[in-house]
Amino acid sequence: MLNQTQECALLIIDMQNDFVLPGSSAKIAGAKATIPVIQKVLNSFRKANLPVFHAVREYRADGSDIELTRLENFLEKSKMLVPGTYGCEIVGELQPVPGEYRIVKNRYSAFFMTELDLILRRLGIEHIVICGTQYPSCVRATIFDALSYNYFVTMIIDGCSAQTSEIGESNIRDIKDLGVECLTGSEFIKRLNAK
Amino acid sequence: MLNQTQECALLIIDMQNDFVLPGSSAKIAGAKATIPVIQKVLNSFRKANLPVFHAVREYRADGSDIELTRLENFLEKSKMLVPGTYGCEIVGELQPVPGEYRIVKNRYSAFFMTELDLILRRLGIEHIVICGTQYPSCVRATIFDALSYNYFVTMIIDGCSAQTSEIGESNIRDIKDLGVECLTGSEFIKRLNAK
Repeated sequence: MLNQTQECALLIIDMQNDFVLPGSSAKIAGAKATIPVIQKVLNSFRKANLPVFHAVREYRADGSDIELTRLENFLEKSKMLVPGTYGCEIVGELQPVPGEYRIVKNRYSAFFMTELDLILRRLGIEHIVICGTQYPSCVRATIFDALSYNYFVTMIIDGCSAQTSEIGESNIRDIKDLGVECLTGSEFIKRLNAK
Repeated sequence: MLNQTQECALLIIDMQNDFVLPGSSAKIAGAKATIPVIQKVLNSFRKANLPVFHAVREYRADGSDIELTRLENFLEKSKMLVPGTYGCEIVGELQPVPGEYRIVKNRYSAFFMTELDLILRRLGIEHIVICGTQYPSCVRATIFDALSYNYFVTMIIDGCSAQTSEIGESNIRDIKDLGVECLTGSEFIKRLNAK
């Protein structure tokens, strides 16, 4: 396969406290359980000296940059992902280290009006490995754009999450059909180490 | 609801012979059955003198603009959606009439590197009504971008299609969760007529 010979980058999506921790308003039920898998994949990229991108969601406290579909709830019920709050921070286990890229996004796709594609091109990356949350929205929208920009995509199936396993499985089915390689974290690490 | 007071536009996605007709290589099994529903919705927009957009997929015959995931099959097995071929044409029942917009796209989303958003803004449209094929790829990717650009979205559930009803249903579940209004063609037409 073409992508086995290419330099790849890791993209971790939205693993922030507000999405991951128990009790947070925007909690994705399956997200916490993926942390150990993502840690292992992240460590394999660090050891191989390959680029790592952390895509994070941020919303201004006045709601001016949130999706319209979330605006009312955000203003009237519970704010989330506001810079400077604990909820907006990346979970402790997956904190970026110097040299890694933090990409701020206001929408589903990590490519939508961000500098992600510009940096990937500058680095000569043609293959993106995706972990994070959640399957039906940010993971999937990012994959649509990654394919649209001609990247090869590997999705780490046990490193991505959803509210239920049923939602996860139907999204994996659709994403496989798009031509995305779907591997477990262990399968991916084995391959990376064999290169 | 806010969107009931706004001007809306109809966006019909990829209802081309290669995706719809029996025997075509890229056939979406559920697409043909949606034609009568889309026709009724289309007629309601025409009667109300509201804008209609036909998004179509086109690929150059040399494969230079096709998704990488489809390139090998396209070059070595069967070409599809090449301008000038019958397969690339919009199905007879849904042919555009003068004054309607034809948007050519090379990727999943009708917004990705097309003039769709520019024209919608010029027309002052804030609400998009979506029909077409297929649920897990072009319909869904277009909806992600429509929400990202702050449009209100109504999806006509019996005017969109997939290879199986199971795929359709799991996508409707996820798309509803994004905050998209999901109506049947009849429900939508009744509301439009009541305005």
